[in-house]
Amino acid sequence: MSAAFASRWVELPGHVREDADAATLPQGFRAAGIAAGIKPEGLDLGVLVADPHETTSAARFTRSGVLAAPVQVTKERTDLGAIRAVAANSGNANAATGRPGLDEAARMQGAAAMVSGAPAEQVAVCSTGVIGVQLDGEKVVKGLLAARPELRPDGALDFAEAIRTTDALDKHLALDVELPGGTVRLTAQAKGAGMIQPNFATMLCFVQTDAALPAETCDLLLGVCVKRSFDRISVDGQLSTNDTAILMASGASGVAVEPESEAELRFGEALDYALRRLAILMVRDGEGARRVTRVVVRGGVAEGVERVAREVANSPLVKTAIYGNDPNWGRIAQAVGAAMLDMHPLHYDIRIDGTLVCSGGYATGKTAAFSGDEIEVEITLPGDGAETEVFFSDLGHEYIKINAEYTT
Amino acid sequence: MSAAFASRWVELPGHVREDADAATLPQGFRAAGIAAGIKPEGLDLGVLVADPHETTSAARFTRSGVLAAPVQVTKERTDLGAIRAVAANSGNANAATGRPGLDEAARMQGAAAMVSGAPAEQVAVCSTGVIGVQLDGEKVVKGLLAARPELRPDGALDFAEAIRTTDALDKHLALDVELPGGTVRLTAQAKGAGMIQPNFATMLCFVQTDAALPAETCDLLLGVCVKRSFDRISVDGQLSTNDTAILMASGASGVAVEPESEAELRFGEALDYALRRLAILMVRDGEGARRVTRVVVRGGVAEGVERVAREVANSPLVKTAIYGNDPNWGRIAQAVGAAMLDMHPLHYDIRIDGTLVCSGGYATGKTAAFSGDEIEVEITLPGDGAETEVFFSDLGHEYIKINAEYTT
Repeated sequence: MSAAFASRWVELPGHVREDADAATLPQGFRAAGIAAGIKPEGLDLGVLVADPHETTSAARFTRSGVLAAPVQVTKERTDLGAIRAVAANSGNANAATGRPGLDEAARMQGAAAMVSGAPAEQVAVCSTGVIGVQLDGEKVVKGLLAARPELRPDGALDFAEAIRTTDALDKHLALDVELPGGTVRLTAQAKGAGMIQPNFATMLCFVQTDAALPAETCDLLLGVCVKRSFDRISVDGQLSTNDTAILMASGASGVAVEPESEAELRFGEALDYALRRLAILMVRDGEGARRVTRVVVRGGVAEGVERVAREVANSPLVKTAIYGNDPNWGRIAQAVGAAMLDMHPLHYDIRIDGTLVCSGGYATGKTAAFSGDEIEVEITLPGDGAETEVFFSDLGHEYIKINAEYTT
Repeated sequence: MSAAFASRWVELPGHVREDADAATLPQGFRAAGIAAGIKPEGLDLGVLVADPHETTSAARFTRSGVLAAPVQVTKERTDLGAIRAVAANSGNANAATGRPGLDEAARMQGAAAMVSGAPAEQVAVCSTGVIGVQLDGEKVVKGLLAARPELRPDGALDFAEAIRTTDALDKHLALDVELPGGTVRLTAQAKGAGMIQPNFATMLCFVQTDAALPAETCDLLLGVCVKRSFDRISVDGQLSTNDTAILMASGASGVAVEPESEAELRFGEALDYALRRLAILMVRDGEGARRVTRVVVRGGVAEGVERVAREVANSPLVKTAIYGNDPNWGRIAQAVGAAMLDMHPLHYDIRIDGTLVCSGGYATGKTAAFSGDEIEVEITLPGDGAETEVFFSDLGHEYIKINAEYTT
């Protein structure tokens, strides 16, 4: 069960109600999680099935030039607008595993098709874990067969558990969303980001609803909401070979979400809430992190605004200062300068939780602490019209400990 | 005195001999380092003077969009081809200090002119330390006046000590360089890089010679050698507001280095040796670092080769794995993919100290440890004709400790 979630940056929309029972999937879905022996212990293989043939879907993947085998197989062989089943394992990323890895990913897809009753081209496969080690396909196939009788309408938490690695926080939720045509359910399960699985910053997220959405609407809404959530977070600036986000809509509630309708707007708001909440949880769960910081950058040039936000979010100097509550905003100024090469003289302001510490590039003499769970840093560059935000975790001892001693 | 220096990546040229006496400057130079009270204790203000009026010079500065006041003053007011004096302080970066900071930097320049006997437009000023705190100009002026009687031909080590912050390793050297026209002397003093001064990754480097070089030759040689040294290192991917490198040639030996001559080639090799050695020392001295890694990337596209090298060098996952001797080369594969967005399928090889761990993007089954003081990682991308290298430090507990608790 999820602990109560609160963040100053995410608000539950008025037409959305949280359901404490996150195990029960929307109508039309079944899920299971089992221990297949890929990890030394615990659940490591999840299966998610949408029974209605009219299920629609959308997917987003990592942009890494080094794609894991399951990402390749899903991108190339799966009808991404009509995904009816997902098989996902933890403990092995099946990345940099060559032809044998592709064969195992395809075999995983085939076995999941058999178990779910959906054709192989409607099955997505996902993996997360260590890179460069062959996935034991026998274990996966046996595991999938064992999962078949376990598939249940209230299996969401087992599925969530199976894709989890070292996540300290639960990352699942269930929402009831009031639409003009009736109430629909939206559930989601996510894992990781930023080294929560210490070996790799893999982010997986699966969202289910019993609303009826055209595949194009799934794609549009998932695209917009991923851009506002998982695309706006950073634990350590690392990009995974395996990141995958999948939205599936079974239509089993009979409530339709038509393009450009009030229902689309409302459903989109609920999806946006869900993904931003999960994204912030990923940052909050960044290994050893104490605080989540949102950096907001405003200015006249979109590219510059984005570059400054990323430079601040990924600066180990800024991250360690926040971790240590060292009120050393000069490190933020350094990151601004590093992002704006050859742009001197640069007029910029820095505010920390509302306190103006740097005005026009110069110290105001005021200081601000990096205390509390959530910090807001605002940076203003010359001009206006462009604005962005990045949520990031700090950098502390636990990160080093976990990552210096992972496979050994 | 410098400890004996050895690295597999830097070799003393045959015509260059190291002199254990690094205190004695080349002919025509005097230097001093004194305690001006800018830091709580120790030397914190250095002065370097070239007495010959015909002294030539060249300088390179940080490309940050946020320039410290001394960098602005030196870039705008100093004849960079004829620098005859340098004043440099540690303990305060005089950055993000606005108009008062610029005034203090100009005052520092004026006082150093008085002390050195060179006109203000032939004086460079440098600072390193905390950002966003006003520099106490009274202390600087008093300190400079106190330094005047201390200026000595064998003052290089006091000068080096004054610009040092928390450097654990000495970064100075003295070389005798045989040129066709006679032997010239080359000395250099450097500090920092990569948070050796924990607050900031500032790199300062001063090089003196009694060879006679046209200013254009100074500029050419310094430019080439900085590109092959300080531009190729990373401790934590952070760019300082204060980085400065200055080469001064007094000509007092009477040995000329003419453009496109054998002497120029030989002098360039000595300078290259000196700067690469100091650069590697900076990486070796990266806070808490255990090992220096050189990543060499080869391929067909210069931009891609550079991007991959930087992504690997600045990846906290790669750095922590090397720190912990965790033979997890998958993190290098991840960094390659992150640098090459949307480039799948990507064929690349990874070698660690000669062992091919990944061939054509796929695990070979071989592993290689990250042990010893120096690691070499070679990455081959498709095509050929482009090659680069970056030297970087690992990331360990000491870095967090130092940087989370700096100003507090």
